[in-house]
Amino acid sequence: SAPQSDDLAQVKTMLQLCVDRYFISPGKSNTARFRRGMSCNYGPLGMELRRNLLEQWWRSVSSSRDQVFGISTVSCTMDGDSDTGEGGGHLRMVEAESLKQMLQQENISKEQIIQELQSLLQRAPPLRRNLLQGALLQFVPMLELVNRKLPFGLAEVGLCFEPSDGSGRLTEFTQTSLVWFCSPRTSSQWLDHWARQRLKWWRKFSLSPSGFSISNVPGEEVIAAASRGVRVLYNFPWGQEALETLWSRGDAELLHVHNGVRSKLQCRNERKSVPQVLSITGNVDCGLMAFLFNSLQQLEKKDGKQRLQHRKVLKLHPVLSPIKVALDTGRGATVELKQVCEGLLHELMETKITVWPGYLEPAPTSMEQLFAKYDEMGVLFSVVITEDTLETGLLQVRSRDTTIKETMHISAIMNFLTRYISAAEKI
Amino acid sequence: SAPQSDDLAQVKTMLQLCVDRYFISPGKSNTARFRRGMSCNYGPLGMELRRNLLEQWWRSVSSSRDQVFGISTVSCTMDGDSDTGEGGGHLRMVEAESLKQMLQQENISKEQIIQELQSLLQRAPPLRRNLLQGALLQFVPMLELVNRKLPFGLAEVGLCFEPSDGSGRLTEFTQTSLVWFCSPRTSSQWLDHWARQRLKWWRKFSLSPSGFSISNVPGEEVIAAASRGVRVLYNFPWGQEALETLWSRGDAELLHVHNGVRSKLQCRNERKSVPQVLSITGNVDCGLMAFLFNSLQQLEKKDGKQRLQHRKVLKLHPVLSPIKVALDTGRGATVELKQVCEGLLHELMETKITVWPGYLEPAPTSMEQLFAKYDEMGVLFSVVITEDTLETGLLQVRSRDTTIKETMHISAIMNFLTRYISAAEKI
Repeated sequence: SAPQSDDLAQVKTMLQLCVDRYFISPGKSNTARFRRGMSCNYGPLGMELRRNLLEQWWRSVSSSRDQVFGISTVSCTMDGDSDTGEGGGHLRMVEAESLKQMLQQENISKEQIIQELQSLLQRAPPLRRNLLQGALLQFVPMLELVNRKLPFGLAEVGLCFEPSDGSGRLTEFTQTSLVWFCSPRTSSQWLDHWARQRLKWWRKFSLSPSGFSISNVPGEEVIAAASRGVRVLYNFPWGQEALETLWSRGDAELLHVHNGVRSKLQCRNERKSVPQVLSITGNVDCGLMAFLFNSLQQLEKKDGKQRLQHRKVLKLHPVLSPIKVALDTGRGATVELKQVCEGLLHELMETKITVWPGYLEPAPTSMEQLFAKYDEMGVLFSVVITEDTLETGLLQVRSRDTTIKETMHISAIMNFLTRYISAAEKI
Repeated sequence: SAPQSDDLAQVKTMLQLCVDRYFISPGKSNTARFRRGMSCNYGPLGMELRRNLLEQWWRSVSSSRDQVFGISTVSCTMDGDSDTGEGGGHLRMVEAESLKQMLQQENISKEQIIQELQSLLQRAPPLRRNLLQGALLQFVPMLELVNRKLPFGLAEVGLCFEPSDGSGRLTEFTQTSLVWFCSPRTSSQWLDHWARQRLKWWRKFSLSPSGFSISNVPGEEVIAAASRGVRVLYNFPWGQEALETLWSRGDAELLHVHNGVRSKLQCRNERKSVPQVLSITGNVDCGLMAFLFNSLQQLEKKDGKQRLQHRKVLKLHPVLSPIKVALDTGRGATVELKQVCEGLLHELMETKITVWPGYLEPAPTSMEQLFAKYDEMGVLFSVVITEDTLETGLLQVRSRDTTIKETMHISAIMNFLTRYISAAEKI
């Protein structure tokens, strides 16, 4: 079905908000990249949101389980590395300079050109398209680590590349990867287990969990290397897109990477079997976009003069919100006010709370405008320090989610904020 | 002067330790990459050490200052992006498939090949060699953010690529970048300020601070774009290498990226000047290696039978240590012991303490061997749970730095470890 005009308006609103509020850099090609779920140029808020997302992913797959180990592999392989098979080969990095020099030689024949090109291609390092191959290569040393006992997993986050539509454009995205090694008997159960776990994880941080779902990959779309697949989908305004894909891949690729030497790969179970490989890969850039769309609330509200106001609030989960606290002076900062703000900022930063130095920005025309800005940035609390604060020590704290403004003494603010924010992280 | 054989032995020892203790993956080409300060395939410990290092870098340049904003830019630019000048151009990504297809055409002429290659090169996206260009492009929207007031900075961590010696080999490394924009009047002071700050940072986490130093870049090595430079050096066994480089770059590159439109770039100071650019770039992979070499202590000690033992201890700073606590059973884990370990592991992980599941590994031949292994891994505390623990609740905790073993009740261990580790983080 064709997307409704409401949906298109929502997409437009979201993209504009992301540019206006420093999630992504301005520019048509950058917005297009973002919209397609690729890596793009992120501003401070987008960068911080991605950091938070990756931190949570890492915690959920790696640091909460004793059998998952983090690794980090190179993005382009070199001579001396094993063949990377399916994962590489299509995109290669060439030194433009040496190609140009060759083309400038006057007496070079067609055959020489072809020969040189072929040798250049052979030497040119391939760029990875996914993180699977790196994990398969690292399987052997890690197997010793767990005393050859299954199951265990290798987790990684890294940049991957994809050739796109032949226009010379290139897709670059940050992939999350968990490669899970288990016994043949249990692989199907593990696939279901991980699919449920992953769905639960996405929903845990969402405002409307029903936007996220899982679905078996239909037979005709199952890749040759896999026997079965599950996708974690998000229902974007333009349709469903996969955020994560889980494949049950058997043992063929693992054997291939290790030249078929079964003895190296065998585990300490009854049958000394070569483990089955499950791959669970996600696109962080696409996931980030899903959470942005999922958390956008558009409200209509009458202002003091009975005019209809459109309020946009990015209700990101407290753990994901790139900025927890904004510090502002409301009406332009004097030197004294700025000092108070800076003091509070450093105190908050020491407790690892991300703070927005709103007092550096141009002054807003009204307090309503100020809060509207911070709502669009998904800031949990806006703290307003005024001349009054210098005299009485009182400041105003406004909550994104309740929109309630509280007056509080400056000595109480640290405790108030840290308590709320650390409670949110415990969920 | 030629390196002494002692120094070479130290390098060999270090590289072997890194492979044996899961800092890097085995393999000759991988070790060579690591040794050259490039990104390589990291095992769980190397990956975690790099994470800790980046976290500390991030905290020191970005989250502790109100005028530093984090960004994240793409590693290959696309049509529609601005010219990236000096930073790109040399390395381009080509789709090997389309090149191969062209070469297989039978009736293609030399001229056609040359033409097609030239157009392919033009379309092929360039890979970045540093993070400077991304920050210069993002300068304009960020300038609005700070109300056109100087100084401010843009911080980023990202993968960069370098062509190497023409052999088709490629250098891939993770760069840290702070691009600092300041008024012309203050740029020289800022360069000195940042050089001192950075040196202080490196020394803060080192065992022997004198290994780190700063030095002005000699006139003949100053790059064309810069007027002055400072390097942060580490004295490796094979000689000094730069971990970070600071350049005072003037305003030419910033103007070039923005097509010379001064009005867009002018700041709100007396003279409405275009800011001066300082770049502070580091190689994380090289920095990681510096801390490993810096923290390796080799001790000789007589064992119970008066035999000389060589003990290697990786005395990494507690904040950098990839693993804070190892949980072990000493002599093979029964189901019950494993359950106790798992319980403690999850409790520790919830407080974000990294734990090593030593009870999954093959059992060591002696307790001395066990502690020697954890010393080589730089583990701060080894906790040994035995059959005794099941009966009396008592376990043993051994400290890497004091080598003292304490007997402690299992109910006291969490408090003991979290207190020590959070105190270490406050430094």
